[in-house]
Amino acid sequence: MKFIKTPVKGMCDMLPQDMELRNYVLGMIKETYKSYGFSEIETPVMEHIENLTGDQGGENEKLIFKVMKRGEELKRAMESEDNSLADSGMRYDLTVPLSRYYANNMGSLITPFKALQIGNVFRADKPQKGRFRQFTQCDIDILGDGSILAEIELIAATANVLTRIFSEIGISKFTVHVNDRRILKAMALFAGFSEESLSSVLISLDKMDKIGLDGIKEEMIANGHLAENVEKYISLLENITPEISCSEFCKFLKENYIEGEVIESIENTLDCARSMVHSDVTLMFDPTLVRGMAYYTGTIFEISIDGYNFSIAGGGRYDEIIGKFSNQKVPACGFSIGFERIITILNDNLDKITMEEKEKVAILIEKGASSELMLEAFNKAMKLRNEGKIVSVQPLSKNAKFQVEKLVSNGYSKVEKMYI
Amino acid sequence: MKFIKTPVKGMCDMLPQDMELRNYVLGMIKETYKSYGFSEIETPVMEHIENLTGDQGGENEKLIFKVMKRGEELKRAMESEDNSLADSGMRYDLTVPLSRYYANNMGSLITPFKALQIGNVFRADKPQKGRFRQFTQCDIDILGDGSILAEIELIAATANVLTRIFSEIGISKFTVHVNDRRILKAMALFAGFSEESLSSVLISLDKMDKIGLDGIKEEMIANGHLAENVEKYISLLENITPEISCSEFCKFLKENYIEGEVIESIENTLDCARSMVHSDVTLMFDPTLVRGMAYYTGTIFEISIDGYNFSIAGGGRYDEIIGKFSNQKVPACGFSIGFERIITILNDNLDKITMEEKEKVAILIEKGASSELMLEAFNKAMKLRNEGKIVSVQPLSKNAKFQVEKLVSNGYSKVEKMYI
Repeated sequence: MKFIKTPVKGMCDMLPQDMELRNYVLGMIKETYKSYGFSEIETPVMEHIENLTGDQGGENEKLIFKVMKRGEELKRAMESEDNSLADSGMRYDLTVPLSRYYANNMGSLITPFKALQIGNVFRADKPQKGRFRQFTQCDIDILGDGSILAEIELIAATANVLTRIFSEIGISKFTVHVNDRRILKAMALFAGFSEESLSSVLISLDKMDKIGLDGIKEEMIANGHLAENVEKYISLLENITPEISCSEFCKFLKENYIEGEVIESIENTLDCARSMVHSDVTLMFDPTLVRGMAYYTGTIFEISIDGYNFSIAGGGRYDEIIGKFSNQKVPACGFSIGFERIITILNDNLDKITMEEKEKVAILIEKGASSELMLEAFNKAMKLRNEGKIVSVQPLSKNAKFQVEKLVSNGYSKVEKMYI
Repeated sequence: MKFIKTPVKGMCDMLPQDMELRNYVLGMIKETYKSYGFSEIETPVMEHIENLTGDQGGENEKLIFKVMKRGEELKRAMESEDNSLADSGMRYDLTVPLSRYYANNMGSLITPFKALQIGNVFRADKPQKGRFRQFTQCDIDILGDGSILAEIELIAATANVLTRIFSEIGISKFTVHVNDRRILKAMALFAGFSEESLSSVLISLDKMDKIGLDGIKEEMIANGHLAENVEKYISLLENITPEISCSEFCKFLKENYIEGEVIESIENTLDCARSMVHSDVTLMFDPTLVRGMAYYTGTIFEISIDGYNFSIAGGGRYDEIIGKFSNQKVPACGFSIGFERIITILNDNLDKITMEEKEKVAILIEKGASSELMLEAFNKAMKLRNEGKIVSVQPLSKNAKFQVEKLVSNGYSKVEKMYI
C-alpha cells in the first residue's frame, strides 16, 4: 500500500503562518459580528443526501462530495443497483445546514435568531488560484425577522467587518450592491419573457461584467428568445447608471410590474445601512445583480472591493427554505463572507500587517544531559511561561549555529543553550 | 423530495450556549499549549483512502466514512466492479493527517516541529452518550525530536491544560499513566508468548480495568494460549502495585528482556514531568496501559480524572508513520485531548463556571416605523457598539412582554422599545 503525502486534490495544508493570519482575521470577524448580537453556532460538515440534492443549491449540487453507505445498507444498495450508494454528503454551503438547524432547534432559540456560523464547505470544483475544494465560509443570518431591519443589520455588520479587516492594508473603498429577486422577475416579465424562461434570462444577465450588453443580447438570441423581447430587455438595461436609484429605475418598468413596497424597502435599506458604515463605502442599487443560488426569494446583495473584479461577500433573503424542513414558513436572510478571498488579498500585503506576539524563548539542552540538568531547564521554562512568555525546550543539535538561526527566523528572540 | 431536519445520525447541532462553552475551553487549551511553543496548523478533513486504510488506525479503520469518486472515474469504477468506489474518506484521527502533513511540508517547518491541531474527526461508530460520529480532537505533537524532552513537554503541557480547565469546577486530581510498547512486548516474550501472539495478548491486557486478572486469564486460555505462558504472564501482573516504579517492575522480567535505557527514559520522564505539574497530579508507571492504536512504537500515556472510569487524554510515540509518507524516518510523539469528554463533564457543572460577558442591549422598533425612526435606532446602536456593548436591533413583536422576558433570559440586561 502506497501512502500519499500531498493533500486530497484541491484541499490545503495550513502552515503555522497561514493559521496565524486566519485566526487573526477570524478574531476580528467574530468580535465585530458578536457586537451586533450574533451568536456562534455549529452544524456537522455532513448532511443527509436528500437535503443537499433538493434543488436548493443550484449549480453547487453538481459538485457534491457524496459519502457512501456502510455495512449492510451499502450491500443492499449495491445489489439493488438503484445507484443510491450515498446516504450523506459534504455540505456545499452553510445556508442549507443552517435552515435544517433552525427547523430542528427552533424551540430552544430566541426569535429573531441571529446566527454566526464559521465552517468549512466542500465543492468538487476545478481547483484554481484562490479556489479550493475545502474552504471556509463565514455566515451571519437572521432567522424569524421578515422586516428590513434584518437586511440593514446584515449589510452594516458585514461592511464594517470588511472595513476593519482591510484598514490595516490601506483598503477602504468597497461597494455594496443591492437588488431584489422580485425586481429581476419584473424586468423579465415586463420585457415579455415567460416565467419559465426566467432562469435562462438571469443566467445571461449574470454575465454582464464579463460579456457586456452586446454579449447578453447575442447569447439570448442564440438561446432562442424572441428578438422583440430581447430588444425590450436590453433597452431596459441601457437605462442603468451607477447612480440610478431603485425608484428611478422602476419607473422604466411602467405598468405596475413591481410593488411600491419593494421599492421603498430597498431605498430604506440603502439609506439606513449607509448611515452605519464608513464614508468610503458606497451602497448602490444594482438591477444587474443576480447571484446564483436557487433559494433566494427577495433582497440580494454583494460587496466588492473597488478595483478588484470579484465580490468578497454575498447574500440575500431566502424565506422559503426553512419551511421545507419544518412545514412552517420562517423568514430568513443571510450574508456570507468569502473568507479565502480575503486571506488571498491579505497574504499579498503581509508586510503591512502587524499581529501582536508574545516573547518567544528557546531553551536548548545538550544530548546526554543528566536528569538534574533537565529538571533545571524545565523549571526555568515553567517560570518564564508563568511570566507570560512562550518557551520551548528542545534538544541542542550538532549544528547549533544553524539551529539558532532557524529559531530566530521563527520568532524566537532569546535562545539559551545548556551544556552538560 | 423530503427534507430531514435532524442532523446526520450521531452528529450534533451546537446551540449558542454549547459554542460558548466550547470556545471558552478551546481558548484555554490554545493559550496554554502556545506557551509551550506549539504552533497551530490545519489539515483537510478528507484524506486519500490509501492513507486511511494502510493499517495504521487499528479498529478505527472499520469505521471510516468513505467519499465516492465522481464523474467519469466513478463510472469506470462501477463498470469494473472492483469495489473501489471511494477515492477518499473522512479522517478518523488527526495523527495520520499530521504525519502526511509533516512529510509534505517538511522543508517549510522548523525542527523539532511542535504542532497544535484542533479539528473534527469522524467515525461511523455506534452513537451513545458522549460518543459522536463527528467530534473534536485537540492534539499536540512534537515531530523530529527522538529524545524524552518531547514526552516531558507533551505530558506537562497536557496535564497543565487539564488542571487549568477543571480548576473552576473544583477538580484537580488527575493521574498520568505512562508505559512503553517495548515493556509490553518484553512482558509477553518473557512469559513465553511468540511475537505473533503479541496483539492477542495486548487485547486481553487492555481489559484489565473491566475484567480483572481472573478475566484476563480466562480469556487468554479461551483464546488458545498455552496455560504455562498464561500463568507466567498473570504472575508477572500480580506484582503490580500503584506505587511500583519502572525499574522495580522490570526486575521481575529478569534475563534482560528490556534495555536499561528504556527504563531510565521512563523514570526520567516521570521525574521531570512531575516537577512541572500541579501537586494534585499523580504521575505513575503503569505496565497495564496498552492503548489501541496500531502505530505506537515507544512510550504511551493516558490521563484519567480520579473517580471517573475513563481517560480524557492519551498519546504516545509513533516513530514509524512519517517514514511511510516520506521514505525518511522521523521520530514523532503526540498527546490528544478527549475534548467531548471534557465538555460533557463541564456541562454537568455549568453553575460553577463564569465566562466573561459583555453588556447586551436590545433595541426594539415598532412595525411600520418611519425611516427617520429607524435611522435614530441604528445610530444609537452604533454608538453603543463603539462603547464596547453588544447591541441587537429587532422588530418589536405584538407580545412585547414575552419578547422582553425572552431577551432578558438570553442575557440582554437592557431592552429599549421605540414606538412610532
